[in-house]
Amino acid sequence: MTKKYNVAVVGATGAVGQKMIETLQRRNFPVNKLKLLASAKSAGKMLNYKDELIVVEELTEASFEGINIALFSAGGSISEKYAPYAVDSGAVVIDNTSHFRMKEDVPLVVPEVNPEDIFTHQGIIANPNCSTIQMVLSLKPIADHLGLKKVVVSTYQAVSGTGKKAIEELKEQSSAFLNKEKYTPKVYPHTISFNLIPQIDVFEENGFTKEEMKMINETKKIMHDAKIQVNATCVRVPVFVGHSESVYVETEKPINVEELRGLWEKFEGLKLIDDPKEQLYPMPRNSEGVFDTMVGRLRKDVNSDHAASFWVVADNLLKGAALNAVQIAEKLISN
Amino acid sequence: MTKKYNVAVVGATGAVGQKMIETLQRRNFPVNKLKLLASAKSAGKMLNYKDELIVVEELTEASFEGINIALFSAGGSISEKYAPYAVDSGAVVIDNTSHFRMKEDVPLVVPEVNPEDIFTHQGIIANPNCSTIQMVLSLKPIADHLGLKKVVVSTYQAVSGTGKKAIEELKEQSSAFLNKEKYTPKVYPHTISFNLIPQIDVFEENGFTKEEMKMINETKKIMHDAKIQVNATCVRVPVFVGHSESVYVETEKPINVEELRGLWEKFEGLKLIDDPKEQLYPMPRNSEGVFDTMVGRLRKDVNSDHAASFWVVADNLLKGAALNAVQIAEKLISN
Repeated sequence: MTKKYNVAVVGATGAVGQKMIETLQRRNFPVNKLKLLASAKSAGKMLNYKDELIVVEELTEASFEGINIALFSAGGSISEKYAPYAVDSGAVVIDNTSHFRMKEDVPLVVPEVNPEDIFTHQGIIANPNCSTIQMVLSLKPIADHLGLKKVVVSTYQAVSGTGKKAIEELKEQSSAFLNKEKYTPKVYPHTISFNLIPQIDVFEENGFTKEEMKMINETKKIMHDAKIQVNATCVRVPVFVGHSESVYVETEKPINVEELRGLWEKFEGLKLIDDPKEQLYPMPRNSEGVFDTMVGRLRKDVNSDHAASFWVVADNLLKGAALNAVQIAEKLISN
Repeated sequence: MTKKYNVAVVGATGAVGQKMIETLQRRNFPVNKLKLLASAKSAGKMLNYKDELIVVEELTEASFEGINIALFSAGGSISEKYAPYAVDSGAVVIDNTSHFRMKEDVPLVVPEVNPEDIFTHQGIIANPNCSTIQMVLSLKPIADHLGLKKVVVSTYQAVSGTGKKAIEELKEQSSAFLNKEKYTPKVYPHTISFNLIPQIDVFEENGFTKEEMKMINETKKIMHDAKIQVNATCVRVPVFVGHSESVYVETEKPINVEELRGLWEKFEGLKLIDDPKEQLYPMPRNSEGVFDTMVGRLRKDVNSDHAASFWVVADNLLKGAALNAVQIAEKLISN
């Protein structure tokens, strides 16, 4: 018989929390007991898991008694405060917030890229930023076979990355625009409907946003290569689900696009969609609910054999968050 | 007294044609007689110019008698066929299509960047691609003061670049989506509402689209520098008006961002909007109807003093098409 685990989801009523529950179910994770935790405001809500209705409980310091694995996705300050209690109770925390990601003794893991890091954990394993995860999946075969020197990435990020309220804002604001009604932004600093906001998260002193710096720093940590030069521009687009990325890379060895396509096809977690003649390439509307990260539009730079461009799309709530966390848990229990 | 000119607009009923008429009016171009030309289907329509209603006439080989300046924006095949008749009639053609752009004896002009090329014309002056125009405006001060080696650009292009039918498609398809109704794409190969299409124009053999190759090749021609290495990825986004671009550059000299901001502020046709503390940066919804190309989000690369990233937005129907054409005409008659 398979061993079964007591799993807690912290932030169970949020956009990512609900995807975590859904993903545990879709992947048939060996759950013994599922504990759903949220703020006092959401406590008492009922959520579906398989054929059960589970009551959401209020998150407290005592919530983690008997829990083996705690999936956190309720914001950095909640992780900061409650992850230590989970660890003290003997649970392994898989944290979807940015709070622990760059801490030296916390592994930052994309299971297809650096699974070995999982087993160095001291109680907490960090789930990388959504836009980092899908990018490093596409970069890993390049780094392994061609030597990765430089990455210039521009993102096209969906509103679901911000949460449920942002999804509502895009819906309501788009409707208002089409009906020629006024709608004052509540979630974003500017209008998002039929617009672009070249700012995700707050600005750092160096002019980059935190989201951009996450892509720069997390990539180096996950790939175990501090020398990879990453430049990132992160942009919010009026799309509900699915982050897209335009990626330019420079490599040590010359690039053969057919070979690279072959490497991607063989790489776990990637799906190659790259048929220009049929106008087939990854698009966010085709990513919703899909576990794989989609890559396409690969072409060699016109100026250099050591550079190429491509396009990467993934469901930001799944591979960018819930799925990656559950995959970490799967690897963890496989040992 | 100012000399006045007989001006023809070919493709007068299209999205760009109407902006040409509007721009001639807004800039008080010295028009003697305005002739509006279109296909037989549109002939007979009435369009407003200043306080006049002008009847649209059918475009024929004989349409250009007495015309001094002919602004073409009715598709490449119309320009190919009718521009020679206009030239034979003594008119100077300013062509907004891609048909003549890369021909050696046809100047390709952004008036703030290479105005001197206007006067080398042999009857035809080409207006560059929309996404190229706004980019080279931002690049010119960099090339002049810092030496421009490499450009990696990812675009976020509005549907109005495709024309009126695409504007309708985005409106209707967005409405249908919000009302949970089906809507089959007619203009684009895929759904554009709440989606992204990483393809603009058709694919070339090398995997780039024509739009991307235009940005690569036209930039070199306008900047008179075949050595500038441009890599472009062009993406259609669900925005009505305003193309946006995420631009990464590498330069010969080290970059000082304050100095570069100063250069941009002084450069004709550019407007600097770059105040992260106030969350101010260019956005497409703020570009509609604006003549200036907006630049912002400038920051030096974290890895190199010889690299930087920034964000460029312009009204694609104005600076990207109609305005640039009218500005060429203005320079032309100023001599």
